[in-house]
Parts: sequence; structure tokens; C-alpha cells
Amino acid sequence: MVLRQGDDVFASLEALMRDEQIASASIRGLGFVRTARFGYFDFARGDYDPREFADLEITGLTGTLAWKDAKPAIHAHATGAGRDFQAVGGHVLGLVVGRGSFEMTVNVYNQRLERRFEEDIGANVLQLE
Amino acid sequence: MVLRQGDDVFASLEALMRDEQIASASIRGLGFVRTARFGYFDFARGDYDPREFADLEITGLTGTLAWKDAKPAIHAHATGAGRDFQAVGGHVLGLVVGRGSFEMTVNVYNQRLERRFEEDIGANVLQLE
Amino acid sequence: MVLRQGDDVFASLEALMRDEQIASASIRGLGFVRTARFGYFDFARGDYDPREFADLEITGLTGTLAWKDAKPAIHAHATGAGRDFQAVGGHVLGLVVGRGSFEMTVNVYNQRLERRFEEDIGANVLQLE
Repeated sequence: MVLRQGDDVFASLEALMRDEQIASASIRGLGFVRTARFGYFDFARGDYDPREFADLEITGLTGTLAWKDAKPAIHAHATGAGRDFQAVGGHVLGLVVGRGSFEMTVNVYNQRLERRFEEDIGANVLQLE
Repeated sequence: MVLRQGDDVFASLEALMRDEQIASASIRGLGFVRTARFGYFDFARGDYDPREFADLEITGLTGTLAWKDAKPAIHAHATGAGRDFQAVGGHVLGLVVGRGSFEMTVNVYNQRLERRFEEDIGANVLQLE
Repeated sequence: MVLRQGDDVFASLEALMRDEQIASASIRGLGFVRTARFGYFDFARGDYDPREFADLEITGLTGTLAWKDAKPAIHAHATGAGRDFQAVGGHVLGLVVGRGSFEMTVNVYNQRLERRFEEDIGANVLQLE
């Protein structure tokens, strides 16, 4: 999948999952983003502390596509770097493609995978047989 | 493969290799780790200088599974980031899953791959035909 | 593909593309490099601002192999870290393998992919159907 300037990476992946009825997939990607929103989980608060970065070369995105309550559930982490080449990264909350493009490889699997909230862990966990 | 809090990533991969008789594989992963031990090779000393990091989101792990002297030989590198989103990384000496989970994709190949110590390079090198 | 000390990663990939007539592929890799040349695109100037790093563990390389004007067109991003484990990264302009080896996984696809310069974006973009 090749995204272009202004595209929202997660919205594009969700549309792909619905259109192609993707049961589950592994994804990876690289490209230039105008904004990257990363999060670091605060277990006390039960939510991600967000931080936004502008104009990053995403040097590596990796993730999984699954479903939760019949809706697409995307889990992705990424690393990126700006003009100073110092890398930053985290759990991806959102990415908007910048000038140029963003290339993704989606390895589709036939087995439908679901995420489920596991009380004891306090997180949505991918369920395998 | 989905690992959970407290799991040792390498021990889990080694068990998978033995149980499923995996001839060779490429792996990648993402998740939250309680401890990450990275190493940087000191060729003078012939060993890795280790450094341990706590509570990292692993933003990308990539590696290969092979065999050496009939034992699993895992080679993996990873990048991660903590609360400040500044990325660190290196050769992986060990990872223990933190609160939450760690997701890995294992692409299995039929060809058995071995690592062998190459004297002139001074390192264990994956042997291809 | 396993490269060794002194090998040029892009030259090796280009030779592989020609020898094996690879229509397109996704690549990923890890290993130790003597020199990594990363670039950050300056849209005003229309070229990459380069920066060279020495003796890096590449903690993750990801990219795509395609063709442009009948010549191999490699697009790769990478993250790496040196002795201090602080990660750096960017668009890859060049990599030379250091002492040890560099392991790459090449997932080959049958569909030939081309890059084409898109005037409005000002960049070479991978063309999918």
C-alpha cells in the first residue's frame, strides 16, 4: 500500500481492512510523515501519555491488524528521526503522511484475530489459539 | 506468537523452535518490556558490552532464528523508547515482557540454517548455500 | 542474504535484483555497519542532506525493491545505534558492512513495481495498480 501526502495512515489501514475483509495481518512501513503522535502508557491513569512530532522520516513501523468488537484494531509501534537524525519512537497513536509518500507492506493471514481486554494485565491483548 | 508479562522473549523463542522444529525463520516484534538488555560488541575483548534499560516500548525488533551445534541460535536487534520517547537500541542480549504483551511474527522457512564461527571475522555468521 | 565485512549493501541488493530478476520485494535487515550514510530530504533544495555515522549496529532496516527506468531502485530506511546505545536513523543513502555480518530477508513478489517521479509531490513514488 502506498499512501501520499495528507493521508492518515490508520484511517487508510482501517479502510483496507474493511474493503478487503482482512482477517488479520502483519504490517511494516517506512516513509515521511508530517505528524507522528506517539504514546507511552501510564498504567496508573490507564491511558497513553501522548507526544507529537513533526516532519519525521519513519525509519521503521511494525504492527498487527486484528479486530475488536467487530471493528478494526490496529496495533503499531514506530521509530523515526528528523533533520538531526536523532531517533524517537513509541506506540503509534496516529500518523499523517508528509510531503512524499509512505510505503506499507501488509502480510495478510486467513485466521481472524481478535483483541480482548485482559483484566489482570490491564491491556487489550491479541488472542491466538 | 503473543507473550505476556514476565515472559522471557528468547526462552520463549527457543522453546518454539524446539517444539515446532523450526528449521529457520525471520522474526519481528513489538511490545512493552520490563527489561531490555542490549549489547555492543567489543572486538578487542571478544564479547558484548551490555547495558540494561527498564520499561521500554520496543518500537521494532528484527532477527533470524537458526541453529548452532544443534541448539537454537537467535540473532535479534531492537530499538525501543521509554517515557521520554528518545530511542535506544542495539544487539539484543535479553528481553523480559513488561505489563501488557509482546507480539511476534515468525516467518518460518523449510531450509535449515546454521551459524558457524568464522575465524577471520571473529563472529558467528549465518551460513547460506 | 548474508553480507560480510566490506560489502556495500545497496550494490549487493542491486546485483541480486539483476541476477535473480526480482520484479519487486520487501526487505528488512540487521547487522553491523562500518559506515551508514543517512539523508534527510530538503524539499527547497530537492536533495538529501547527508550525515555519516561510523560503527553502528543497524537495529532495523526496512525497505522496498522496485525499478525505475529499467534500473534497480532501492528505497530503505534504517535505525541504528553505536556504543552509547542512542539511536539514530533516516533515509538510507548507503551502508558498508563492518566487522561481522549483515543479514537481510528479501520477500520477493511477482508483480513488477516501478517508481515514477510525481511532479506535484516532488518525489519518486512507488506505483501500485
